[in-house]
Amino acid sequence: MLSAPFVSKNWICATENFDDANWVMVGIPYDGTCSYRPGTRFGPELIRLASWGLESYSPVLDKDFQYVNFFDAGELDLPFGNRDKTLDIIKNTAKEVYAANKKWFGIGGEHLVTLPAMQACFEKYKDIAVLHFDAHADLRDDYMGEKLSHATVIRRVSDFVGMENIIQVGIRSGPKSEFDLIKKYNTLAKGINDFSKKLEKIKNRPVYLTIDLDVLDPSIFSGTGTPEPGGLSFADLLNYLKEMTGLNIVGIDVVELSPHYDLSGVSAVVAAKLIRELLLLFN
Amino acid sequence: MLSAPFVSKNWICATENFDDANWVMVGIPYDGTCSYRPGTRFGPELIRLASWGLESYSPVLDKDFQYVNFFDAGELDLPFGNRDKTLDIIKNTAKEVYAANKKWFGIGGEHLVTLPAMQACFEKYKDIAVLHFDAHADLRDDYMGEKLSHATVIRRVSDFVGMENIIQVGIRSGPKSEFDLIKKYNTLAKGINDFSKKLEKIKNRPVYLTIDLDVLDPSIFSGTGTPEPGGLSFADLLNYLKEMTGLNIVGIDVVELSPHYDLSGVSAVVAAKLIRELLLLFN
Amino acid sequence: MLSAPFVSKNWICATENFDDANWVMVGIPYDGTCSYRPGTRFGPELIRLASWGLESYSPVLDKDFQYVNFFDAGELDLPFGNRDKTLDIIKNTAKEVYAANKKWFGIGGEHLVTLPAMQACFEKYKDIAVLHFDAHADLRDDYMGEKLSHATVIRRVSDFVGMENIIQVGIRSGPKSEFDLIKKYNTLAKGINDFSKKLEKIKNRPVYLTIDLDVLDPSIFSGTGTPEPGGLSFADLLNYLKEMTGLNIVGIDVVELSPHYDLSGVSAVVAAKLIRELLLLFN
Amino acid sequence: MLSAPFVSKNWICATENFDDANWVMVGIPYDGTCSYRPGTRFGPELIRLASWGLESYSPVLDKDFQYVNFFDAGELDLPFGNRDKTLDIIKNTAKEVYAANKKWFGIGGEHLVTLPAMQACFEKYKDIAVLHFDAHADLRDDYMGEKLSHATVIRRVSDFVGMENIIQVGIRSGPKSEFDLIKKYNTLAKGINDFSKKLEKIKNRPVYLTIDLDVLDPSIFSGTGTPEPGGLSFADLLNYLKEMTGLNIVGIDVVELSPHYDLSGVSAVVAAKLIRELLLLFN
Amino acid sequence: MLSAPFVSKNWICATENFDDANWVMVGIPYDGTCSYRPGTRFGPELIRLASWGLESYSPVLDKDFQYVNFFDAGELDLPFGNRDKTLDIIKNTAKEVYAANKKWFGIGGEHLVTLPAMQACFEKYKDIAVLHFDAHADLRDDYMGEKLSHATVIRRVSDFVGMENIIQVGIRSGPKSEFDLIKKYNTLAKGINDFSKKLEKIKNRPVYLTIDLDVLDPSIFSGTGTPEPGGLSFADLLNYLKEMTGLNIVGIDVVELSPHYDLSGVSAVVAAKLIRELLLLFN
Amino acid sequence: MLSAPFVSKNWICATENFDDANWVMVGIPYDGTCSYRPGTRFGPELIRLASWGLESYSPVLDKDFQYVNFFDAGELDLPFGNRDKTLDIIKNTAKEVYAANKKWFGIGGEHLVTLPAMQACFEKYKDIAVLHFDAHADLRDDYMGEKLSHATVIRRVSDFVGMENIIQVGIRSGPKSEFDLIKKYNTLAKGINDFSKKLEKIKNRPVYLTIDLDVLDPSIFSGTGTPEPGGLSFADLLNYLKEMTGLNIVGIDVVELSPHYDLSGVSAVVAAKLIRELLLLFN
Repeated sequence: MLSAPFVSKNWICATENFDDANWVMVGIPYDGTCSYRPGTRFGPELIRLASWGLESYSPVLDKDFQYVNFFDAGELDLPFGNRDKTLDIIKNTAKEVYAANKKWFGIGGEHLVTLPAMQACFEKYKDIAVLHFDAHADLRDDYMGEKLSHATVIRRVSDFVGMENIIQVGIRSGPKSEFDLIKKYNTLAKGINDFSKKLEKIKNRPVYLTIDLDVLDPSIFSGTGTPEPGGLSFADLLNYLKEMTGLNIVGIDVVELSPHYDLSGVSAVVAAKLIRELLLLFN
Repeated sequence: MLSAPFVSKNWICATENFDDANWVMVGIPYDGTCSYRPGTRFGPELIRLASWGLESYSPVLDKDFQYVNFFDAGELDLPFGNRDKTLDIIKNTAKEVYAANKKWFGIGGEHLVTLPAMQACFEKYKDIAVLHFDAHADLRDDYMGEKLSHATVIRRVSDFVGMENIIQVGIRSGPKSEFDLIKKYNTLAKGINDFSKKLEKIKNRPVYLTIDLDVLDPSIFSGTGTPEPGGLSFADLLNYLKEMTGLNIVGIDVVELSPHYDLSGVSAVVAAKLIRELLLLFN
Repeated sequence: MLSAPFVSKNWICATENFDDANWVMVGIPYDGTCSYRPGTRFGPELIRLASWGLESYSPVLDKDFQYVNFFDAGELDLPFGNRDKTLDIIKNTAKEVYAANKKWFGIGGEHLVTLPAMQACFEKYKDIAVLHFDAHADLRDDYMGEKLSHATVIRRVSDFVGMENIIQVGIRSGPKSEFDLIKKYNTLAKGINDFSKKLEKIKNRPVYLTIDLDVLDPSIFSGTGTPEPGGLSFADLLNYLKEMTGLNIVGIDVVELSPHYDLSGVSAVVAAKLIRELLLLFN
Repeated sequence: MLSAPFVSKNWICATENFDDANWVMVGIPYDGTCSYRPGTRFGPELIRLASWGLESYSPVLDKDFQYVNFFDAGELDLPFGNRDKTLDIIKNTAKEVYAANKKWFGIGGEHLVTLPAMQACFEKYKDIAVLHFDAHADLRDDYMGEKLSHATVIRRVSDFVGMENIIQVGIRSGPKSEFDLIKKYNTLAKGINDFSKKLEKIKNRPVYLTIDLDVLDPSIFSGTGTPEPGGLSFADLLNYLKEMTGLNIVGIDVVELSPHYDLSGVSAVVAAKLIRELLLLFN
Repeated sequence: MLSAPFVSKNWICATENFDDANWVMVGIPYDGTCSYRPGTRFGPELIRLASWGLESYSPVLDKDFQYVNFFDAGELDLPFGNRDKTLDIIKNTAKEVYAANKKWFGIGGEHLVTLPAMQACFEKYKDIAVLHFDAHADLRDDYMGEKLSHATVIRRVSDFVGMENIIQVGIRSGPKSEFDLIKKYNTLAKGINDFSKKLEKIKNRPVYLTIDLDVLDPSIFSGTGTPEPGGLSFADLLNYLKEMTGLNIVGIDVVELSPHYDLSGVSAVVAAKLIRELLLLFN
Repeated sequence: MLSAPFVSKNWICATENFDDANWVMVGIPYDGTCSYRPGTRFGPELIRLASWGLESYSPVLDKDFQYVNFFDAGELDLPFGNRDKTLDIIKNTAKEVYAANKKWFGIGGEHLVTLPAMQACFEKYKDIAVLHFDAHADLRDDYMGEKLSHATVIRRVSDFVGMENIIQVGIRSGPKSEFDLIKKYNTLAKGINDFSKKLEKIKNRPVYLTIDLDVLDPSIFSGTGTPEPGGLSFADLLNYLKEMTGLNIVGIDVVELSPHYDLSGVSAVVAAKLIRELLLLFN
């Protein structure tokens, strides 16, 4: 064939071989329940392209991405108009990942894509705890009459995981009913010290980490349909991550980049760099 | 209250009183089945804002918009995640318009919103003919397994109107199966003379006109998720419209402006000016 | 008429009835004296649209916007080329608001629109104090020979209110002569503690609050023709507001969003959320 | 000083020496009466920058720009808030140009800047005829009560030049009253043949040419606050220009580029290339 | 591994197997000699993404893309700062394609990438003719002292192919010296009839077709650093292509999409659709 | 000639006379080795335009820009495709500046432009120390095989200045080998106190200050091809500058603004304001 080097069509530093990988990265280009400004379906593609501007080495963690074993499966080919079938495909794919004794790394797409992945994860790890970074609680019981929505996803997760097994960071927007639930179950970390304390009780358990990128302040992450000023800086977010060192993370997703609102491309770079740090930290 | 003049929140020149109106304009901010680049839900709002840059007089038609009796009902409040309920709301609203002996002017949103409006129209006018301007035939029987989609809408319309009662303009993209149907039923106008000839056979019947704005060339209409180079210029489109003078148009919709791809705002102005010309022509 | 729910064309949660309202919100789409990058005339419209992405509940204040009684009068229809007539219309409208025993909430437009509103306010409240958030002092006596300009507005206000009754926050740009005035009258708060101390002396008086949105850092508020790096974060601004709890605020305006420089729409959301917090705090 | 070549800060191919020049190019960054979407004050600067992407040779005219003697005076420093003083400065500058036996080449800015230049021109050439390319007639007697506005400029010109000495091209938007005037005086060219015929009667007279760039279709010129679909292509416009070969053009202006709506920069290039062709044609 | 369908990372309808292919598509992300507005290095990637919005069927040609045998090799990994090494890599890759008895389909990148591909092609086909679509002649002997540049590429090609074997379409910008060459060798088609006549003399020879996308008018193709108004419409370009039916095309490239100036994404779609038509026509 | 005031085509407050100036500002529009997202060649021009929105007075420094004696030479006219010749031109120009006993103020362009300027500076000041603000260490020995690149520039500088004479601020991205060098020579300031301590040892020496603008966080500076979240705020950067009061700065450059990614124009304003503060501080 051709002898010249070609640019990989995968994530930078991804492993070519599925069997070698500890983590399987799956793009999930779905935004079918988005209520306000859609477009997250283009997120996985743009983040993958942005990965090619990253250095492989992280000076913060003093580790090199070249030694992380992750496989980039690409993006699922989903029937956009059919929410239930889409959720089935995601769930089945996540089950295959867990059946192969690997860890799931989903890249959204809207936040609802977390639900089927966590269902698959829960089938394997019954005592799972959930770490949830987000500007929004996503704890509504229904949204405009729908039980399955980006705005209800953590509530649906709580149906099988239990509210007492969820720790939240950065929540700053939602109806009063959600904040009543947050108070009742004391899910929300009040700063990094409280976060650290809350982590104590889950340190011996498998943990699923879900990050809605709008947990970041829109100054550093404009690429969202639902900007909420008053969020974390990138440095804040890294500090939270470093607190999690040593946790047994068995699944991760990073969701809700909406490229329409990321005209400078900074948000895609932020997402890509965050994902590199996550894989370095939990490899 | 306040005595100063305030800017109307309605379309320019809209009638304040529903009862006085011949036409009822309804914004339909729905894009739930969009397969490629969503965002048409913001179309009706942006077109209404653009209407305030229009002159009321049309030198092409030598008529003034101030003398058109149309009521701007605003935008429907729709449950985005629920396609079937959305279609019901549109259909019921269109039925109310026809029950009040008025004409329907829908502003999309994606093209699927034409289906319920035309169903309501068909319940009143059984011998209806359909004029369809579009870059795409929208004649698939299903799209990714779905029967109800922006890509199947004219096929669904043909189920009750009949392929032989459809005239198409500007179609230039689609799978072979759609073009086979087009040839079989000879629906597509081969230029303006053929269009004029095709109009002959429907001139004594009620007609529903549906315009997907991507029938225009992307040079003048970039505001679409599915640009198809090789389309009509604005002057071409006006010439087609002028051929329709005297037809008994009983329903119109103008759909598929996607503001994400209209960074200069020209597409919204094009849509607004087209709507003014349509209302002037068929008042 | 039509039975389906339609999207309101007013601000989210606005009261339908003028008489019920404590606050009257008036959009003032004027930018006629803008010296550098015009476009604030589109501010009120874009902020109103952004209000529809807000939650009604504020977790920071633990209050719900649904219980605020404010009336959205819409945008004044102004003669753009005629500054003096424009100022008259604004002043008369504000006088009507105060005559009805309601409070004025202006949304600019450029900062000059504050002057006529504050003149009307002063006619009712002779002992008024002024809180002024801005990157620029706006204390020039004239600007390119003009006495009435966005760059002279607080100086003109001081003509009847008195420099000693003005407290400023965030000022960080201007000619030396303005900073000499600031020092002479000690108007500028040196951090939040100094702000708190300065508030002591006005706590029993009626207060007019005017916020030029460029007081925020351009990282979180790019939507301005005059970005001044080194400003407040959104969290900083909320902290200043919370210090003001219990003040007798009788008039507010929020000015200078320039949508041309807000391509991601974050600035409009920032403005809308700020306005929600202000109305919750001072209802 | 410094021996390296530096990029000129003037228009490409401009003459360094005022005295040598036949034409004097003056940028007029004024948009104070703009009613809809302001921003044309940045036009002259952006067009000058775009000039540096031009070739000096025109294959259409087979002439080279290096042999045109024009002086680029730069942009006037204008008091934005003061319309009357602005008009005085422009008029005086134009008078100085004509007093020096040179020709005026104005670059707007909004269309009102044509008025003082043409007044100065008229003081020298009493039998002047006017060629006016525009989407809008600009023949209102007043606009929102103002006699001096971008929307009244040709009417004001007609006050001293006479309607019968005006030839118009491309007009396609305005109130009925303006089109009544157009018909009464038969000012509007009905295609290029009619234009050619109309030129016959002015071929022995001094002519002032004013081009509002929105005469072009927004497909090729999106950089305008008032896009009017249905306009000229660039090739159409060149054809009109070529008809004018041999006319005694004594003043030109090119106005109304609004860079906010020219995100790709194509409109600025179109304006710059048009200006090169004009100077080549009428040198 | 994983059983769900994934989105291909290749061009739509590309053959998975190199050996089966007639054509080999190679992305060449190089823009190192670009003089004015760089960015074409991102062209191949953006065009590949846009390919996924295409239908596989072309109604103009009545052929289906699924039956074209082309292999998408992806993008070459090039040393940006080193022009000569970059050219070597391209040339060697093209030689391998020709050695495998396949045809080269390059996607630029800047126009200089045509040179090494055509050198490789010429080594195999000594009697090659060249069809060159472009706004610019690219016939300079040097550009700012450089012999190898995007502005000299066709001159360099003529060094071994001979000026008399080059046919040009759409050239409308350049210095006089280039147009003198064009006239001397009569390379430029004066409209489609002249093109057809010129094709007569090369109909029995191998032909290399190179298309600089700026041959299109910037109204339909804004995505270029060097917009030249007055170009071809998309329909014009298709008409030229259809004239070429039956030619023995042995190499093609499509170059100079600059995504920075394609904010709506229309230019990328135009490029992708053109490439589909080319592969359908010359499969 | 013309008596009206014209807008200067130079930087705001620049001295007209070369001989009077202490500083000579030279724009260097070169981006030929940029590996990822080019476009910095337009930086100097855009920063100069942004300078016209600045106040002349700095309240932070309590100094006025009108009293700074700097000459704006404009932008070098460079052969883009020829790196070595470009570097020669820059070096010779800087030598002329130093020969005239003035100080060099370069505005990039990519970071490689620092090398020839610092070579010229070193020829005059043999004991020079270097202050380097950047997100990237730029300490690679080669980049994709090239010794002279934006990614190797500080390494090349260290070849003659010595690693021990370099102090770095803000570095947060690069391969491990670069961070090994940083540790070995302890070049990187660990916060402002460490910076202050490091400055002690160079306070009696001539110092060259080079600022890659991406040292700022992308929240306040999106205008870069290589955004690195986690950087300095503008206030942070000013604090570092103030620590440098009293240093003997003999050369400065500010590089890497890439206007393609600065859609709101905030980054250009940030760069312009930083340059004003630098000239005020080191005049």
